[in-house]
Amino acid sequence: MKRNMKTFRDRKKEVLSKLQGLGSDIYNQLSQGKFPTVNMPSRSTTNIVYDPDVRQYILGERVINRSAGNIRHLRPLTQLVWVGNIVHKLAEEGKTSTLRDVYYMAQAYDVEFKNQQESDTAITELETVITYPRENFNVYPEERSAIFGDLTIEYTVPGYEGKRTNLTSHPDGLMIGPALETADLIETNAEIIICVEKGAMFTRFVEEKAWDRFKAIIIHTAGQPPRATRSLIRRLNYELGLPTYIFCDSDPWGLGIALTVICGSANAAHLRELVTPDAKWLGLWPSDVVKYKLPTQRMSEVDLKRTHDLLKDPRCQDDPWRRELKKFLETKNKCELEAFSRYGLAFVVDKYLPEKLQIEK
Amino acid sequence: MKRNMKTFRDRKKEVLSKLQGLGSDIYNQLSQGKFPTVNMPSRSTTNIVYDPDVRQYILGERVINRSAGNIRHLRPLTQLVWVGNIVHKLAEEGKTSTLRDVYYMAQAYDVEFKNQQESDTAITELETVITYPRENFNVYPEERSAIFGDLTIEYTVPGYEGKRTNLTSHPDGLMIGPALETADLIETNAEIIICVEKGAMFTRFVEEKAWDRFKAIIIHTAGQPPRATRSLIRRLNYELGLPTYIFCDSDPWGLGIALTVICGSANAAHLRELVTPDAKWLGLWPSDVVKYKLPTQRMSEVDLKRTHDLLKDPRCQDDPWRRELKKFLETKNKCELEAFSRYGLAFVVDKYLPEKLQIEK
Repeated sequence: MKRNMKTFRDRKKEVLSKLQGLGSDIYNQLSQGKFPTVNMPSRSTTNIVYDPDVRQYILGERVINRSAGNIRHLRPLTQLVWVGNIVHKLAEEGKTSTLRDVYYMAQAYDVEFKNQQESDTAITELETVITYPRENFNVYPEERSAIFGDLTIEYTVPGYEGKRTNLTSHPDGLMIGPALETADLIETNAEIIICVEKGAMFTRFVEEKAWDRFKAIIIHTAGQPPRATRSLIRRLNYELGLPTYIFCDSDPWGLGIALTVICGSANAAHLRELVTPDAKWLGLWPSDVVKYKLPTQRMSEVDLKRTHDLLKDPRCQDDPWRRELKKFLETKNKCELEAFSRYGLAFVVDKYLPEKLQIEK
Repeated sequence: MKRNMKTFRDRKKEVLSKLQGLGSDIYNQLSQGKFPTVNMPSRSTTNIVYDPDVRQYILGERVINRSAGNIRHLRPLTQLVWVGNIVHKLAEEGKTSTLRDVYYMAQAYDVEFKNQQESDTAITELETVITYPRENFNVYPEERSAIFGDLTIEYTVPGYEGKRTNLTSHPDGLMIGPALETADLIETNAEIIICVEKGAMFTRFVEEKAWDRFKAIIIHTAGQPPRATRSLIRRLNYELGLPTYIFCDSDPWGLGIALTVICGSANAAHLRELVTPDAKWLGLWPSDVVKYKLPTQRMSEVDLKRTHDLLKDPRCQDDPWRRELKKFLETKNKCELEAFSRYGLAFVVDKYLPEKLQIEK
């Protein structure tokens, strides 16, 4: 089911207008002779709650303020306003940067950050105020993942405006960076989205024409997907209305990748734009490992501890999470996607995927 | 200066013929009633020597053999022959795999590998016999890096034969995987190659049009470049005859990336196809850090130890390696590429690169 979503241009307009709003609020308070104050939801752990309705972590009712009238707030408030100013400039110019860049840029402005952690915190506070992820005000992660499939996009980045590309144009895949995340999604023949944890499996899916046979857009998450990739997965699911599946190693870390894409993380409880609640964890489940007699490795102590922790996690109280987590504890085995190669390289595409997608549909 | 290089088709033909040669050797010895034997250069550390003429590590004169007449050789010889057989099949079918895949595939054939290390060793021995890197017989690394620039390539992978793409087609960059590494390089207006360590700097170079202003093909190495990327850098340097520059963080690890691209590593002393001896380490040098007054961090104990080790490394006995390693010990400071952001995001492209390329040309 397709849903109307804001285009990149709408989101950018809203982000710019919220940044300007933050600036004029400060300005107006100052010109009225008041100590400027900014209010925002508290991000303290006691205010992070799991909301089963929206199926993700959200922030509770508690609000904090940063006021220039409080000497202890002066520093974080100034930093917040400076970050707002610099990213507004970035967004207007259509330039991207990273958390690390912002930290160094501050030195040109004599804005004092003790260390990068402090500048990162200022950016997270700005996300909380603006309610959009930092990628929407042009602060990108260093990591990149990739995409392949029959989807035509139209760029909005400077120098490429109006140009179109089909994402099957390069069989090794196209990197997911600022240009792709801000592109308009024009046309697709794809019927599903498959996200895979590993580059080699991504290449396998292209080579074995999984994208063609299942009419799939394939995404390489490269482990835990960078936020730009999570945001793109959400867009593909919402804007194109395509069922979305996540395919990872059979261990609590692979499960964790699926969980982050679907339900988000406590760290990003102040954001909505990174989760895809209707996506499904396709596998590799520990029960699949038993069913397909795949070669396994014993789980380590760290793996087992992580499994116990996840069983207590509010995001994992329903099946398949709960059932499969218990299966991990029962078998104490983990298994990598490459284990399918024991049946030949084509098995995963010829046999496993069709059977599993049939069940999940 | 362009040099004639074998095309992918030539290399593939040679690899297939060498694999067949290995097979017929074994077969002929068996049919003559002899215990089959395979000879190869020894890869033991005492047989790895640095050759200043070819400016890389090479294997010395010592030869070892694997003979079925020696009960201790029976296992590695059988494994070597099996690996030769399976990759021959892969190469013929145009399918790619990974070290991990090969390990699991063995289980379908009842070939016994104690662990992946053992199957990895068998593949390295096969590289030594065939004298081509495993990517040439379709065993690829999991990691992927990326490329962007005005270069038109023609694919040779199944389903894409004869199709052409220009590497400016996607501003986030195209992944470097099997399809790109095996493509023919058709046409370029580029005059130089710049390899950068970090994804954010890669994006910066695209956004600030460094590729256009310096007529450069930009490669994102993603830290130590995967071998497929090292092999592509060599091809761009040799086949297109383009000066090649490597641009990394100013620390011994960044220097190590440049060193591996230019001189290779002791681990790959049995191979020639991964090094680019005429590439140049453009920076970021510790002397640049001083000259451009960039913000620094103190080097750690581990950084300093690595610096001392590199000073003893035969690959680092000439300048700029030697001079800059001493500069590290003098300043005891390291610096990341992002530090240029203190002068604004465009500085590195507007000021540093033109000055540095001028000196190096």
